[in-house]
Amino acid sequence: MQIPSQYLEQVVDQLASLPGIGRRTALRLALDLLKRSEVELSDFIGALTALQDKVLHCRRCGNIADTQICQICNNSRRDSSLICVVEDIRDVMAIESTNTYNGLYHVLGGLISPMDGVGPQQLNIVNLTERVQNEAPKEVILALSPTMEGDTTNFYIYKKIKEYPLLITRISRGIAVGSEIQYADELTLGRSLQQRQLFDLAQ
Amino acid sequence: MQIPSQYLEQVVDQLASLPGIGRRTALRLALDLLKRSEVELSDFIGALTALQDKVLHCRRCGNIADTQICQICNNSRRDSSLICVVEDIRDVMAIESTNTYNGLYHVLGGLISPMDGVGPQQLNIVNLTERVQNEAPKEVILALSPTMEGDTTNFYIYKKIKEYPLLITRISRGIAVGSEIQYADELTLGRSLQQRQLFDLAQ
Repeated sequence: MQIPSQYLEQVVDQLASLPGIGRRTALRLALDLLKRSEVELSDFIGALTALQDKVLHCRRCGNIADTQICQICNNSRRDSSLICVVEDIRDVMAIESTNTYNGLYHVLGGLISPMDGVGPQQLNIVNLTERVQNEAPKEVILALSPTMEGDTTNFYIYKKIKEYPLLITRISRGIAVGSEIQYADELTLGRSLQQRQLFDLAQ
Repeated sequence: MQIPSQYLEQVVDQLASLPGIGRRTALRLALDLLKRSEVELSDFIGALTALQDKVLHCRRCGNIADTQICQICNNSRRDSSLICVVEDIRDVMAIESTNTYNGLYHVLGGLISPMDGVGPQQLNIVNLTERVQNEAPKEVILALSPTMEGDTTNFYIYKKIKEYPLLITRISRGIAVGSEIQYADELTLGRSLQQRQLFDLAQ
């Protein structure tokens, strides 16, 4: 499919470089942008330019922020003795929306994945060990996805911080709330049986 | 889900305004853009800026072009006695990739749809009647999607140009009723161009 304008084609190429966007979808999006008024398209471009210039990463936890230190780290009512380690900013947002956690975060910016060429050096792990040393938290919660990469990263972090006097925990694995046991995969079901917990009416 | 940066949120809002992109997907795309280097993001923004400044619509047929007159209209080896009326630029691209059509096009930029507030005035139809008058083509092929809106537009155009001495045809209904031209496979689309039929109100 040949696009009759090189400038349109460049936009299609750029949009198709986004995750999950194929060339056909990219073309649809590009044509939608082309139909917009000058003001609308300028707003679109302006938002992207601000992304480049103004969005910062919190110096303490790596979360996205408009200031040097993010709102969560800056909030004195949060429990600074708890650090929850997550892969991505979206995980912070997901955990925040549960309204069950009042500690701080540490955003790694990815998981160790030798297959994709991502080693510990590419991640925000050095900062984590520094934080553990300087801030002396009581507990570090590993909240990484229960995948091969998540397990590898959990293990790497565990080795790095196990010498410090703190609790290292990880989020529980098991059957998702609201799902049916018969559809759970064997590994998850097996784990959730092995790691069974005392029945507690309060929970 | 609260986004911890207003600038990031603005990008998410803008991306979510694109067709078929929800807020969750928009966030994924925005975070992908945020991870990019300054040069990569500048290229992305540059492509969009060029879209605004440099992409033109052909003065003759309404197709997208980098010049005042598009490559197809400018090509002297194409049969200028044939005008194929299409809804959208993507339909031009789809028909071109069948390699079965050597005439010119006329891009309407939409279909008559009173439900969506699109009347003949919003479309490139006046230009079509002017072209028919000035260029005196032998044949106008109506290649609009076989939908309610397509049929309405076919009928409107038919009434506008039926007084001129030319053949009015439409692509054959090999294409499933209710589906859209841009998604038809090339063989079906090519056949339906070759087997175009005389426009007949009774059909």
